[in-house]
Amino acid sequence: MLNEMGKAAKAASWQLSTLSTAQKNRALMLMADMLEANSQSIILANELDMAAARESGMSEALLDRLLLTPARLSAIASDVRDVCRLSDPVGQVIDGSQQDSGLRLERRRVPLGVIGVIYEARPNVTIDVASLCLKTGNAVILRGGKETHHTNQATVNVIQMALEECGLPKAAVQAIESPDRALVAELLRLDKYVDMLIPRGGAALHKLCREQSTIPVITGGIGVCHTFVDESVDFDKALTVLESAKVQRPSACNSLETVLVHQAIAARFLPELSDKMHRAGVTLHASESAMPYLQNGPAKVLAVTEEDYSDEWLSLDLNVTVVDDLDAAVAHIRTYGTEHSDAILTRSISSADRFVREVDSSAVYVNASTRFTDGGQFGLGAEVAVSTQKLHARGPMGLEALTTYKWIGYGDDLVRP
Amino acid sequence: MLNEMGKAAKAASWQLSTLSTAQKNRALMLMADMLEANSQSIILANELDMAAARESGMSEALLDRLLLTPARLSAIASDVRDVCRLSDPVGQVIDGSQQDSGLRLERRRVPLGVIGVIYEARPNVTIDVASLCLKTGNAVILRGGKETHHTNQATVNVIQMALEECGLPKAAVQAIESPDRALVAELLRLDKYVDMLIPRGGAALHKLCREQSTIPVITGGIGVCHTFVDESVDFDKALTVLESAKVQRPSACNSLETVLVHQAIAARFLPELSDKMHRAGVTLHASESAMPYLQNGPAKVLAVTEEDYSDEWLSLDLNVTVVDDLDAAVAHIRTYGTEHSDAILTRSISSADRFVREVDSSAVYVNASTRFTDGGQFGLGAEVAVSTQKLHARGPMGLEALTTYKWIGYGDDLVRP
Repeated sequence: MLNEMGKAAKAASWQLSTLSTAQKNRALMLMADMLEANSQSIILANELDMAAARESGMSEALLDRLLLTPARLSAIASDVRDVCRLSDPVGQVIDGSQQDSGLRLERRRVPLGVIGVIYEARPNVTIDVASLCLKTGNAVILRGGKETHHTNQATVNVIQMALEECGLPKAAVQAIESPDRALVAELLRLDKYVDMLIPRGGAALHKLCREQSTIPVITGGIGVCHTFVDESVDFDKALTVLESAKVQRPSACNSLETVLVHQAIAARFLPELSDKMHRAGVTLHASESAMPYLQNGPAKVLAVTEEDYSDEWLSLDLNVTVVDDLDAAVAHIRTYGTEHSDAILTRSISSADRFVREVDSSAVYVNASTRFTDGGQFGLGAEVAVSTQKLHARGPMGLEALTTYKWIGYGDDLVRP
Repeated sequence: MLNEMGKAAKAASWQLSTLSTAQKNRALMLMADMLEANSQSIILANELDMAAARESGMSEALLDRLLLTPARLSAIASDVRDVCRLSDPVGQVIDGSQQDSGLRLERRRVPLGVIGVIYEARPNVTIDVASLCLKTGNAVILRGGKETHHTNQATVNVIQMALEECGLPKAAVQAIESPDRALVAELLRLDKYVDMLIPRGGAALHKLCREQSTIPVITGGIGVCHTFVDESVDFDKALTVLESAKVQRPSACNSLETVLVHQAIAARFLPELSDKMHRAGVTLHASESAMPYLQNGPAKVLAVTEEDYSDEWLSLDLNVTVVDDLDAAVAHIRTYGTEHSDAILTRSISSADRFVREVDSSAVYVNASTRFTDGGQFGLGAEVAVSTQKLHARGPMGLEALTTYKWIGYGDDLVRP
């Protein structure tokens, strides 16, 4: 079955790749309109998913993530209209040259072809991903979580109606509807048709994809983020950055896990950190080196473990340790980091430069919160995923990351010398 | 054991990533000098490999590929000096922006880290790859064929001597010396330390890597290349391009496999093709549609098979078929091509434009030979590999393909709004 879907997606991708930006935008506008016009069918389907989820004992937080309301659907439709306004990377000439041989060469951006996306219980991802793929002329095969089965099916139906109304192939956006998990394994090996795989989920999903997929995978999304507080900081400002990086949205991958404090200021800085974090409701996890300065502070403090250092918190918890110097901070980040987002707070230009050069993360910050790692904050307009691997795309991935390029060589009946 | 090599390579990569271009060039120059100064040890080792290869009954062509002479070694050393002259992509700022939030953002090229290269019996690849990786600040783990075991070992010894003399870590260039094949499987799963894997070999090696590797792999090098002869061509010029594409170097991946001839000119063009190819010593493999026009020609002609269409020839053989129109040519290329290099010969602007848009290959040519797909011909200075996948790098890969980028965000104690 997946083979047929793949074949249809590849054929659709050929048609999509020749569309003009205006044609793609017309389809996106129609898709947005039809999502609103057919909101009732989508919301009815969502009610089925909600009922099943309640019955299965899903937590309130997850239930809320699953819920679609007319207002939420309108907001999603408006996001689709926003995608129309983004500039289309397809067709862009990246560079070109005139070779001595007479060959005129250019490198032009083209769609990737067929993109596979595996994701969890977020009904908005279906529309989100479909619109970004359509904008870049890619076909997409979606595999959502079983919790959103009915919602996704209804959503994809509406998307396909819009595609057909524009004379575009339905197979441009397909969803794997059966909850059979064997189909995921099959999708991971569909390299004949699928050009790129984006898993959007937890560490286990990324690991599965990395180990089993024969298709190039974009892995990422796991952020064990650090901030090194150098000896030369302004305490108040540093505390404000740390607080924001930790508490603004603890469940985000770019929120802070570990603060590394220069030993020269530890005795003065850590009590203030305890104070600040106490007021923010944050539990501290202190190393032996940090504990003496924290144990009498107001914030709750526990002894840090190796697991604390290695895992994302996604909660109001923060590791704190004291390091001898910048070298020790960098060494800690190399050992425990996930190459997502790491920051230094310092007034020293040479410390800043060294940190930027030596910390090999997707995003490295000087005197800024790790929370900035985001397609919107980076001005990319939309975010497909956050990559923590190094090939193809790194950090927040915008529309450009959904494209590749081809070399085009022009001659006048030219042979290689 | 590989784990230790990986760990050492990663540590070396951190040191390499902070080197200036001048420091890297100094190491490359010394490496070239020492390869010449120590040519005797390398050539003695090569004689051991040659003797073993002769004993195993290796063909003369392969023996010649394996052979190192003082002259060949000097040529290789001179290639290393050429790498010094290439511009260093590391440190380049790709783009940057000032966000409304106050964040100053830049995207800067950095080395990938550790690169794994698996290759066959070509002793020059060892030095080639080592010099390109060093130039881009990457550490490399090499796994050569067992036929070049002694040569590679002697070469890597000299390279490591040069590295040490410059104060650089030996682990920047390491070779897996044991011929144990289990080590390849182990290397393919060393994702903790290795950032990119480049297989340089046949289809079987690429398949193995795609299926078993947990490290991102660059696959490529397999070229089933087509040229579509449209109805509007100048016969003489078209025949010249086709002959060159086929016979200039039949063993190269960018040489021609299949000629697709527009039906409107088949009756006149194909007899001339037979004539031209006969003089070039090429055997034709004709479809039913082409056979009537070829069977009385001078060139040897056989009936084409499905395998002929799907496999690289690497020899003086050429498939010939007649197609109804451009659509049929594109459909054939989509069915049998490997997205390597495909060309159209035409005087029609609209045919050229459609071919360029609809044929999704790494390199698409208008009125030029497929043989141009090459790092040197594209002005890249050096070629690491030719990628036929779509992620990260497509077509000939130059130094840039050995880099990634990091986002660097500067603020003044900035928090996300």
